[in-house]
Amino acid sequence: MKVVFAPDSYKGSLSSMEVAETMDKAFQSVNPQVETILKPMADGGEGTLGAFSKAVSHEKVHFSCTGPMGERRDSWYLILDRNRAVIEGAVIAGLPLVAEEKRNPDNTTSYGIGEALKHALDHGCTDILVAIGGSSTNDGGLGMLQALGMKAYRQDGKEADIYGRDVHSIKAIDFSTLDHRLEEVTIRVASDVDNPLTGKNGASYVYGPQKGATEAQVVTYDHALENYGKLVEIACGKSIMEVPGAGAAGGLGFAFLSIGATLQSGAKLVAEAIHLDEDIQQADYVITGEGQSDAQTLFGKAPGYVADLANKYKKPVILISGGLGEEYTQLNTVFTSCFSITPAPTLLEDSLKNAEDYLFQTTVQIARLLSI
Amino acid sequence: MKVVFAPDSYKGSLSSMEVAETMDKAFQSVNPQVETILKPMADGGEGTLGAFSKAVSHEKVHFSCTGPMGERRDSWYLILDRNRAVIEGAVIAGLPLVAEEKRNPDNTTSYGIGEALKHALDHGCTDILVAIGGSSTNDGGLGMLQALGMKAYRQDGKEADIYGRDVHSIKAIDFSTLDHRLEEVTIRVASDVDNPLTGKNGASYVYGPQKGATEAQVVTYDHALENYGKLVEIACGKSIMEVPGAGAAGGLGFAFLSIGATLQSGAKLVAEAIHLDEDIQQADYVITGEGQSDAQTLFGKAPGYVADLANKYKKPVILISGGLGEEYTQLNTVFTSCFSITPAPTLLEDSLKNAEDYLFQTTVQIARLLSI
Repeated sequence: MKVVFAPDSYKGSLSSMEVAETMDKAFQSVNPQVETILKPMADGGEGTLGAFSKAVSHEKVHFSCTGPMGERRDSWYLILDRNRAVIEGAVIAGLPLVAEEKRNPDNTTSYGIGEALKHALDHGCTDILVAIGGSSTNDGGLGMLQALGMKAYRQDGKEADIYGRDVHSIKAIDFSTLDHRLEEVTIRVASDVDNPLTGKNGASYVYGPQKGATEAQVVTYDHALENYGKLVEIACGKSIMEVPGAGAAGGLGFAFLSIGATLQSGAKLVAEAIHLDEDIQQADYVITGEGQSDAQTLFGKAPGYVADLANKYKKPVILISGGLGEEYTQLNTVFTSCFSITPAPTLLEDSLKNAEDYLFQTTVQIARLLSI
Repeated sequence: MKVVFAPDSYKGSLSSMEVAETMDKAFQSVNPQVETILKPMADGGEGTLGAFSKAVSHEKVHFSCTGPMGERRDSWYLILDRNRAVIEGAVIAGLPLVAEEKRNPDNTTSYGIGEALKHALDHGCTDILVAIGGSSTNDGGLGMLQALGMKAYRQDGKEADIYGRDVHSIKAIDFSTLDHRLEEVTIRVASDVDNPLTGKNGASYVYGPQKGATEAQVVTYDHALENYGKLVEIACGKSIMEVPGAGAAGGLGFAFLSIGATLQSGAKLVAEAIHLDEDIQQADYVITGEGQSDAQTLFGKAPGYVADLANKYKKPVILISGGLGEEYTQLNTVFTSCFSITPAPTLLEDSLKNAEDYLFQTTVQIARLLSI
């Protein structure tokens, strides 16, 4: 029996590697002869670098950058095959890097992500993949573009600073000063959302609150990004504010589109990079999972993409998640079977605390059933 | 594919028949060609008659009896093959028949169970099976034995009344007036506990509190049953207070032993009566379950016995329960796989309320896995 484990993380408790390792341990405990392949997944958010670093050979590049609140921060990205960079926004300007009580998009910047790109360009990378999910920013990528050389000016002619609060006062944008090396490279952005830059479905309304924006801030940010977006569109000569994904990561998607990047499904990009397709072709069973599964799982989430791949090769695919949402049998349109690790009525805190144990025990039950 | 469903009830939410029917519906929804056999189980407590009445042809006998608080009550038992009676104590003197705020072993009696036996004897039954679990009484079977003709006397020479409170004042017991037909018949008692009549592991200490006994009552009842038990032992000429199961149903087990009955595992008796053995021999899979499973499940509970039978014929047996206790993988010593119906961290009340839906959805996942 050959089994591929390709789970996402259980947010708040286990990394995708920990999930894959626990599943593996459970199968090995039932049948030591089982052949297993661990391919932890990610969908372009937090954990993307981890998934890459486990699955493919790479060089880990440490560098110093501007953190989300403007502080100096040591961070890292990967270089594969000497010229392909993989950058994860979450380890540079991610929401978990900002203390909960300090979360406020006024005070955060995507500047460090631009610095990472420059660093990769300096290293001769010509193919850059950026996972932008999990950001703490709502600056429309202002900071990132500034780090790459763009100039943004205020009413008084002075250059705008790099934070979310500065987006509100921008009156002019100049792209001519952008790092020219950007024109020579391929940048792909891994994103798992389809939101436009502004409007009720835009970055500020949909994701602003979870980054600490008040109701009033959501409204003023939406206006500010509308104004800023139009200026950037003129400067870059592209109509990109409505492109699905422009609103990802507080408008970082939009900023990447302005410098010629393409947006792609994070799960798909990760799966391709780790050659998941080939492993699944040879598997008898594919096991995936995530913290919480529901109808959204079918749209761009890692387990949904893993299921699509498994179905392509007619392989049974089993979802083992921390929790399954209401009417989860609709997940059976792509998953052979879905299971929750919850062994009994219990509190969320208990389930998070015991996730590894619960996951192990549940996977043992499934492994035993598959070993009949 | 042939599947046998032999679950116990999900106490507090679904009867064993409802559990079996929900499991069946789930399998049919996945594979309409599946051949299913519904054999709802019981372990000698509440629901035993239901299990019998679904599984074997029978006559339902209605009769009027003394209820647990001395009230008149319409109840019922079954007659199979014209001369075999199946009596369930829970529908005559069961704890659910006494309002929670009125529960007090002082005021309850097993008298009605004795009346049921008399009624069955009057109908010519020669083989009587009595499921005694789930009782509201702690009268040592005093009431039942009185209904069958035994005389119990107080210090003043007057006959004792039939309630738990009367056990405390008994000074003499006379078995000579017992219904002589009892000597001619076979009585088997289905019980799922091993407690002796008295002591720290006896009826009063272990089960008194759940029947409404205070700490003080527990102590006085233990003394009273010690005195009463010795008088009964002398009257019947048997040493039976320490027999495992004597302490079942508030000492009803002891009273049955005094009239020559044998105590047996309820699950085993039920399984034999419904010919579960034969069905399992022909099955590809056996599915069982109960409200809450833990280490106790392996000792005399219905799902544990079902698993033993399945193992005897080397059939995979799957447990689907409302909840699984800590370290439930020890259940894998007899069960192929164990699953909880809980789809996510949730409250017990939610799980009880949605038990049917959760059970259906979980069983669908398992049916799909078995149909790969």
